[in-house]
Amino acid sequence: MERLRDLDEGELLARVLPRYAATRGVVRDAAPVGPGDDAAVVLTPSGSVVATTDTMVRGRDWHDEWSSAHDVGRKVVAQNLADVAAMGAAPTALLVALMADPATPVDWCLGLADGIAEAAVEAGAEVVGGDVSAAGEGVVVVAVTALGDLRGRHPVLRSGARPGDVVAVCGSLGLSGGGLALLEAGEVPEDGDGTEARGARGRAASGLVAYHRAPQPPWGAGPVASAAGVHALIDVSDGLVTDAGRVARDSGVRLDLTGRVLRRHFADGPLTLALGEEAALHHVLAGGEEHSLVGCFPPAVDLEALPGPAWVAVGRVTEAGEDGPRVTVDDVVPDAPGWDHFRR
Amino acid sequence: MERLRDLDEGELLARVLPRYAATRGVVRDAAPVGPGDDAAVVLTPSGSVVATTDTMVRGRDWHDEWSSAHDVGRKVVAQNLADVAAMGAAPTALLVALMADPATPVDWCLGLADGIAEAAVEAGAEVVGGDVSAAGEGVVVVAVTALGDLRGRHPVLRSGARPGDVVAVCGSLGLSGGGLALLEAGEVPEDGDGTEARGARGRAASGLVAYHRAPQPPWGAGPVASAAGVHALIDVSDGLVTDAGRVARDSGVRLDLTGRVLRRHFADGPLTLALGEEAALHHVLAGGEEHSLVGCFPPAVDLEALPGPAWVAVGRVTEAGEDGPRVTVDDVVPDAPGWDHFRR
Repeated sequence: MERLRDLDEGELLARVLPRYAATRGVVRDAAPVGPGDDAAVVLTPSGSVVATTDTMVRGRDWHDEWSSAHDVGRKVVAQNLADVAAMGAAPTALLVALMADPATPVDWCLGLADGIAEAAVEAGAEVVGGDVSAAGEGVVVVAVTALGDLRGRHPVLRSGARPGDVVAVCGSLGLSGGGLALLEAGEVPEDGDGTEARGARGRAASGLVAYHRAPQPPWGAGPVASAAGVHALIDVSDGLVTDAGRVARDSGVRLDLTGRVLRRHFADGPLTLALGEEAALHHVLAGGEEHSLVGCFPPAVDLEALPGPAWVAVGRVTEAGEDGPRVTVDDVVPDAPGWDHFRR
Repeated sequence: MERLRDLDEGELLARVLPRYAATRGVVRDAAPVGPGDDAAVVLTPSGSVVATTDTMVRGRDWHDEWSSAHDVGRKVVAQNLADVAAMGAAPTALLVALMADPATPVDWCLGLADGIAEAAVEAGAEVVGGDVSAAGEGVVVVAVTALGDLRGRHPVLRSGARPGDVVAVCGSLGLSGGGLALLEAGEVPEDGDGTEARGARGRAASGLVAYHRAPQPPWGAGPVASAAGVHALIDVSDGLVTDAGRVARDSGVRLDLTGRVLRRHFADGPLTLALGEEAALHHVLAGGEEHSLVGCFPPAVDLEALPGPAWVAVGRVTEAGEDGPRVTVDDVVPDAPGWDHFRR
């Protein structure tokens, strides 16, 4: 098997860069200077650039038994572009740094590039630069930076929610967390799985695992919400309650979610089928890495009328009250600690 | 000793972010949205943004016995901002991702942030965002993305050199490579070393090692050269001959360097004192991680008149000729392969 140590940097780039070439031109004239010089140049018609960085570490953020290189590529892009979308911006460009054990198969690196390029094209972003570096035995780390453009609008912050706003979710909830729970329980669907033979539960489980491996957040919904006048936006990276809690804290308000709506729109269906009712609701509230969007809209906004993927109203913003900013479900603080990086 | 695993992400950020606060406002109003939301927003008055990413891996790009966390922070910023400067841009913002073994001392992470912040302030860049993530045993990886602004000028590419141009260098050559050679030979100056007691050679060696640990490239010289009409720019990351070779290749020209000038201006002095004449010239030609700038200027430009650190004319651009684009020293192709990441 051909490994990174068998190629020099130039030879590796000669194979990787053509895979990113498909992303050139997906945004018109986004990058007058792409890979190959000291740095990229990306156009910023609005006079500002939205920038965020997010990383994935083998053995922590993915396991090779569970995720292909292509999955990892899609996922690291999804994470980054969800952060761009959560500012109300449209993605424009990606920079990709790979730090890998020289024993890493070259094919893995090319699969990663293919996954990154596929998600970038879908989201309308160009891969404009990056870095490759050798790392220690067994180490594979991917660090992506995403850039975006606000199209002349103000950035949508976490701090803008106001009492009276409608809390709405665009995208799924709990699928990634549910998929991870299945993988941790040893349920690893094989290629070509999710067939009739496994039955309805098996197909539901396969869907959850597939979403965990390569989330499909509604990237385009960020700019749509911004154009509609959304007051606050965040993406669900650490769990609905945790991330909505950040909006509550930064806005100085309470977000009261409606359990019935969360159950009906998000927990019922594949999640409940695969994991049962109780676990399903747990993942809806606490499941991380979903990268769907949570927005707080002025009540006058007609969510039904927004173009693109549906926004589901899941609650209300109210005054913080004596107990301070917080998230409640049916007026109760849920016991859902969410995700923490160092204390797993 | 307090370690990363003793803190949750919020507690870690509460200690790291104040260290980056010193970088807020070093560029006037550069970042209307800094750390703490989904992504940063950085102003781009010129209508474009220069973007580059560069990483450092413990055990590969630095050794803890040789470099402090502060050194690593300064160096990873220097690398990135040299790439921004080599486009002729002024740095504006940095994003910092740290992937580290949970056993990593918290103090190391804070020292890293201090080194990053110090170099950022010197260069006029703001730390606007980042990411922290747990990694496997012994792993510490830092991935930085730097953004810059062209101030309304065109980007300076590697491909713009023309026959008749003067090749000039701003900054030092060979110090970092020489310092690395000393460290590899076991010469690790202690704190407070470089004193009279070690004599002239010892002080020279200390200077080389200090530069290797925390290079001080002339960041401001990139925009100065661009404003003066430089045709091509690159920074010396992999060695003068290798990097000048990239300009030669991309511009389709030959760069003929003058050995006498390289010796007198760069090899003579601390390098020769610490390592001898032959090794000194080798490091001038092949030493990596110096991050000084090499420019190809129209002959009409008066290098002496440029503001800021001096540019030293070290050669001429000529037609590629039959042998194709290449770098020569006194008309001979030097045997200096430079640096390669995977084949060390």
